Amino acid sequence: MEDIILAIDLGATNILYGVANVKGDILYKNVLATNSNLGANYVLSKLANIIERLLAEHNKKGQVKAVIVATPGPLSHLDKIVYNSPNLHWNRVAIKKELQARLNHPTLPIMIEKDTNMAVLGEYYFGQDRQYSNLIYITVSTGIGGGIIINDRLYRGANGGAGEIGHLVVKPNGERCGCGQYGCLEALASGRAIAKQAQERIIQVGFPHIGSKEVGELARQGNSLAIAILDEALDNLARGLANVVNLFNPNIMVLGGGVIEGLQDLWLDRLVEKVLGSVFKLNAQNLKIEMTKLGGDIGLYGCVAAYVFFKEGQRV
Amino acid sequence: MEDIILAIDLGATNILYGVANVKGDILYKNVLATNSNLGANYVLSKLANIIERLLAEHNKKGQVKAVIVATPGPLSHLDKIVYNSPNLHWNRVAIKKELQARLNHPTLPIMIEKDTNMAVLGEYYFGQDRQYSNLIYITVSTGIGGGIIINDRLYRGANGGAGEIGHLVVKPNGERCGCGQYGCLEALASGRAIAKQAQERIIQVGFPHIGSKEVGELARQGNSLAIAILDEALDNLARGLANVVNLFNPNIMVLGGGVIEGLQDLWLDRLVEKVLGSVFKLNAQNLKIEMTKLGGDIGLYGCVAAYVFFKEGQRV
Repeated sequence: MEDIILAIDLGATNILYGVANVKGDILYKNVLATNSNLGANYVLSKLANIIERLLAEHNKKGQVKAVIVATPGPLSHLDKIVYNSPNLHWNRVAIKKELQARLNHPTLPIMIEKDTNMAVLGEYYFGQDRQYSNLIYITVSTGIGGGIIINDRLYRGANGGAGEIGHLVVKPNGERCGCGQYGCLEALASGRAIAKQAQERIIQVGFPHIGSKEVGELARQGNSLAIAILDEALDNLARGLANVVNLFNPNIMVLGGGVIEGLQDLWLDRLVEKVLGSVFKLNAQNLKIEMTKLGGDIGLYGCVAAYVFFKEGQRV
Repeated sequence: MEDIILAIDLGATNILYGVANVKGDILYKNVLATNSNLGANYVLSKLANIIERLLAEHNKKGQVKAVIVATPGPLSHLDKIVYNSPNLHWNRVAIKKELQARLNHPTLPIMIEKDTNMAVLGEYYFGQDRQYSNLIYITVSTGIGGGIIINDRLYRGANGGAGEIGHLVVKPNGERCGCGQYGCLEALASGRAIAKQAQERIIQVGFPHIGSKEVGELARQGNSLAIAILDEALDNLARGLANVVNLFNPNIMVLGGGVIEGLQDLWLDRLVEKVLGSVFKLNAQNLKIEMTKLGGDIGLYGCVAAYVFFKEGQRV
């Protein structure tokens, strides 16, 4: 009977959850809407419900060794408090404590990590097989975020706030961001930003809902406004990533998230060219930039990686 | 008889050099113009000359254990090659090899490190007494640069290019930078940038030479153009530092360099307020931002710190 873990990737839109063994085989997975507009209490109870149901089904012989939860940040690392989350709209929620209080399993270990940190652990361990000591993972999805591996360890900074790549200000006095600042990368190049631009600038849309996917479709059909919107977003994304490369000089930068996956054919080659062409030559040398192969399950893989590092006694 | 080292801080303008013991007492120091416009060969021979003279004077009993040189970057860490240095105008100079070839002391260890890395080592070890695991040092001088301590170790990145804080693009399509890009922090808030603005915008200067110091004097006298120039530079500097804080979440950010030292009374409080007010609350919590107490000798202290770490067998 093999040890298994419950892996939960809490997103602002969906909760992806599953059961996995320590080799990274995902034995079961499912997705539910987060409905974060209903508030923290609702979401926490929903998470507790999911965990209880998974335990009832998969823990008959006590084989579930831990619950690992990826949460949107900012997450204070030591006390596991979510602060002023622009995406969840949680102001100060002690996610670990609140979750434990809602569960009937006082001895079951719960590990909480910021979603982007979990993703970079998954990429480092399962995606790249631990071959790169300095790896940065960037998600371009509804929002934009990043996780950082430095010297083969997760880098969280002084209290868990490192890696807020989406909130690099790349355009002073630019569009307002959910975080309250103006001109953040997330406000210029995320799925939400592209959709907002499209709603404002593309009049004849022909789509009941217009998001980055639809803008991509229009661009492929030659729509000049859609092309302009994506070009601007791409320029800003490249500028943000170039800043990250000049600061961190990673071995590899891995990209993931629904938006960039959907726009890969339009964006990836140009993005790589723009970034490599604008950073210091030394920093461009040998730099790999590629898409993750883990797709939307990267957070679940990250949960497994976090558990493995924890079991190995490594400081992740 | 105590062990001593030769410490050399090569700058684009001056070469500061000295003799120090491992406790960080600077026993002798002097400064010479670099005259970097005369080319790499000239500068390397000058460095070799300085070293030979210091050895003749201070190594009579073999007490000099190493020569430690801080150089402007970008510096490829493994092969010690300076690449495309915007300040020295060196394109590809193997500084360690070239220096060794000019010296008559084949067994004397030579350590080379990027100047900003050396400075952050000095600050971490002598300035802050190793009490902060995640420390960022930023120099605002003729140029702008940074050094990074992560988890109590110098962070160089994959090949030595980490920490190029001066080349964060904070204003797309902004002023052209010496590195070839547009809108880099260094092109907007360095001493050179402030002087350039002053030369372009302040007509009645009353100063034979106008640099950041003179602009500061004019601002203190109420000159509105000087005030505007410094306010713009400060805004950009704050934006750059806020980006760094959101990415690295350091315990402490230490500032140094002639320009910010000269403008401290006008800038420091406002800079701290701007940075703390624009980063994530989690990242602002407990963040210290202060001036270095090591002044212009920070590079020399860094040479000592680098030697001490090397002797202790630590990977700096």
